[in-house]
Amino acid sequence: MTAYQQLERIFGRLAALGDAEGFLHWDSSVMMPPASAASRAEQIAALQSVRHEIITAEEMEELFNEVDNRGELTDWQAANVREMRRRWRRQTALNADLVEARAKASSACESKWRDARPKGDFSLVKNELQTLLDLVRESAQAFGDVLNCDPYDALLDQYTPGLKKEIVDPLFNRLAGELPGLLHRILEAQGRRESANVPEGPFPIDAQRALGQKLMAVIGFDFEMGRLDESLHPFSGGTPDDLRITTRYEEGEFMSGLMGVLHETGHALYEKGLPKDWRLQPVGEARGMDIHESQSLLIEMQACRSLEFLTFASPLMQEAFGRSGPEWSPENLYCVYTRVEPGLIRVDADEVTYPMHVILRYRLEQALLSGDLPLDDLPGAWNDGMKELLGLNPPDDRDGCLQDIHWFDGAFGYFPSYTFGALTAAQFFAAATETDGDILPGIGRGDFKPLYRWLGENVHSQGSLLEAPELIRQATGKNVDADIFLAHLERRYLA
Amino acid sequence: MTAYQQLERIFGRLAALGDAEGFLHWDSSVMMPPASAASRAEQIAALQSVRHEIITAEEMEELFNEVDNRGELTDWQAANVREMRRRWRRQTALNADLVEARAKASSACESKWRDARPKGDFSLVKNELQTLLDLVRESAQAFGDVLNCDPYDALLDQYTPGLKKEIVDPLFNRLAGELPGLLHRILEAQGRRESANVPEGPFPIDAQRALGQKLMAVIGFDFEMGRLDESLHPFSGGTPDDLRITTRYEEGEFMSGLMGVLHETGHALYEKGLPKDWRLQPVGEARGMDIHESQSLLIEMQACRSLEFLTFASPLMQEAFGRSGPEWSPENLYCVYTRVEPGLIRVDADEVTYPMHVILRYRLEQALLSGDLPLDDLPGAWNDGMKELLGLNPPDDRDGCLQDIHWFDGAFGYFPSYTFGALTAAQFFAAATETDGDILPGIGRGDFKPLYRWLGENVHSQGSLLEAPELIRQATGKNVDADIFLAHLERRYLA
Repeated sequence: MTAYQQLERIFGRLAALGDAEGFLHWDSSVMMPPASAASRAEQIAALQSVRHEIITAEEMEELFNEVDNRGELTDWQAANVREMRRRWRRQTALNADLVEARAKASSACESKWRDARPKGDFSLVKNELQTLLDLVRESAQAFGDVLNCDPYDALLDQYTPGLKKEIVDPLFNRLAGELPGLLHRILEAQGRRESANVPEGPFPIDAQRALGQKLMAVIGFDFEMGRLDESLHPFSGGTPDDLRITTRYEEGEFMSGLMGVLHETGHALYEKGLPKDWRLQPVGEARGMDIHESQSLLIEMQACRSLEFLTFASPLMQEAFGRSGPEWSPENLYCVYTRVEPGLIRVDADEVTYPMHVILRYRLEQALLSGDLPLDDLPGAWNDGMKELLGLNPPDDRDGCLQDIHWFDGAFGYFPSYTFGALTAAQFFAAATETDGDILPGIGRGDFKPLYRWLGENVHSQGSLLEAPELIRQATGKNVDADIFLAHLERRYLA
Repeated sequence: MTAYQQLERIFGRLAALGDAEGFLHWDSSVMMPPASAASRAEQIAALQSVRHEIITAEEMEELFNEVDNRGELTDWQAANVREMRRRWRRQTALNADLVEARAKASSACESKWRDARPKGDFSLVKNELQTLLDLVRESAQAFGDVLNCDPYDALLDQYTPGLKKEIVDPLFNRLAGELPGLLHRILEAQGRRESANVPEGPFPIDAQRALGQKLMAVIGFDFEMGRLDESLHPFSGGTPDDLRITTRYEEGEFMSGLMGVLHETGHALYEKGLPKDWRLQPVGEARGMDIHESQSLLIEMQACRSLEFLTFASPLMQEAFGRSGPEWSPENLYCVYTRVEPGLIRVDADEVTYPMHVILRYRLEQALLSGDLPLDDLPGAWNDGMKELLGLNPPDDRDGCLQDIHWFDGAFGYFPSYTFGALTAAQFFAAATETDGDILPGIGRGDFKPLYRWLGENVHSQGSLLEAPELIRQATGKNVDADIFLAHLERRYLA
């Protein structure tokens, strides 16, 4: 076997073991009985140790040296090696002591956060976050050294390969400059319109489930190779050939839950469309968190919250619940689904205000990592930022700087991908609908095939052949651009 | 770390990976969408390869040598090493070519069997079975060499460690001598009694599920650490801390399905009772297939098909389905649950005729392995045996020698454990009820604690400390004995 073939074999096994672990996580969230978590943790730890040992085995360095010096590789094979090496470098960048210290600090901090958040008191978790932050900084430095980049870029890169501050900064500055004024105009215009009329429940869970499944199938989800289940926190898991998405039902309200299902369907269909010839190889996997989020946001925000789709879906909703009346008109449903309201909580934010939440975190986490912002000043800086960006005053840390688990779990460099994903979604959708005039009409008649033809060819089938910014450039003809997203907001909320 | 500690670490990891694989199998049977089998096979193959590589690593021989020569081990540690060595020897006994040839032959033969069985034509699969049989014979020889025993004993040992022909032969000869006459008398007595009156459906699935869960809880199943689901072939899976049992519902009939649930509950509660201090170690695992089957048969045949239990369960059944009438009396339910009827199919057999099915297979498989019985003669020998043991003539191979998948899958030495388990169940139950006079009355009032106190102390908590025959001897004061089983049948069916 050539060095390349050996690497393919090793990474194929790593991927299959990773998929196995993925199903254990799915099971933990969806099926596992409540008191079985400790035994599950043993299984997951064993899988992780085995994978770590495989990728850090001595032979790897030699294989990577050999693959560089020998033989010709196709573009896909070369990209596969690039992605293999990225993972290998990251896994070997940290010494065992630092890995263990981070794991412990992260676990201690997360557990303290679970205590501090309901009490709304950041000071309770400050010491643990300081320890964790110091270790994250050390890790970022080590990652930056092996990847030969800025430490913060090394953090960004682990969520969206190829993402860099120099790409994010101008986009976020533009958004921070434009969005407050745009938001103001949108709220004014919204105030002048008739207010949206939210259909009132109860909506039986079985009917919600059936409606969700029906619309998933409309979008292209194949229940012969996937499932819809329930979990506390909805997610999309499984593998391209066994997609597992979850949701949470509330009897009193179906609209946000349904949109959540369609959002996860967007994630799932990206996985489904990944290149079959490269299954279980790094180059065949999804291109990072940003592109993944772009696919869910494209389906949710661009396609399914459109008047076209709601015109198609409105009779199905009425049929599902045996209901009718003016609140079920496509126009009213569209009003409900595009309502804008600044709020304290990121995960509840609409598409207009969401970027502000991300920009605030992006700025603060860089200041925390550089040491410019001492942790003592974080709650104050958070509240100042909320005031500046959204005009809101968090009453306490609970709905302020304590609201997300991510920092307290060690995930720095994670948030920007959300907004980068939203910009990318708008850009893909604009390019797709420009190329194929039947995409929007298709969505209006419940036919997503034209849309998925474009996405399949230009995004899904590309796997990880390119880095994210290059993938976007190739698919849309330009770099990621805030203008397209802003134009989408203008058109949707002010036209 | 000492050699012993290193072995504990290695086998702990193997067990956790094995548990992970177990959950993937559970998921495949219970949750996986129909078209996802190929990708699941990749995950399972990766896990199996990793486990094979861990247990066959070069360091193992050295560790086993060192652990023999150094330091004192407790009884449990010594038994743990014995079980570790048993697995290691078995894994290293076959060379890679033989393993691969067997896997291929088994897969080819099983797939041919799926084709041949519905057609009822053994000749269609004969060639594939011959290839597989030759490889099984070669494997048995290799296992026998490393375990230093007769090749057929080496096959028995892989399902029930410690089981040997010299133990099985006298028991099965005794049964083959007694059972035909006993069966004749039972059928006569049954003919003189009023016939059983099977309650007629429909029985809504939800009500069946709720009834099953209620009775599982009565027996001691904890739904905080376990689940009941549905699958085509009911089984008991999961781990001691996350028990997963499955069943299959038919709306027209609930009684056999319910008893299946209680049977699997017996398996599950054995797992639950295994020694917590030895979790993930070989010595902490269940003591082979025979003891496992003894625990399910004890609950099903000894405890739950008793008049005492049915007296307790009858009102719960009536309540579950909102039904009443003479067919719901404990006496009638007992009649239904103890009905004896010779039939062609092993898996449908009652406890009186079941051993004949096993004895037939036990005799034939030895003759096949020794070469005394050429495959050409198998269908005829099968039919002769059915005539001799049960007085029946199979109309074709479908319900004759093609009925079970096991031989066609390479599982020789597997069937005896069923009947050895039935004898063991009767022996455990007799010893338990002799020791504690409250066990049977407890079952009559839905209190299984006295029974599980005895089983926990004498069987479950012993894990794999002893080999199966010794475990039975220690728990009951005597070797496995056909008399106790025969006495149970006399008492139940002729008293």
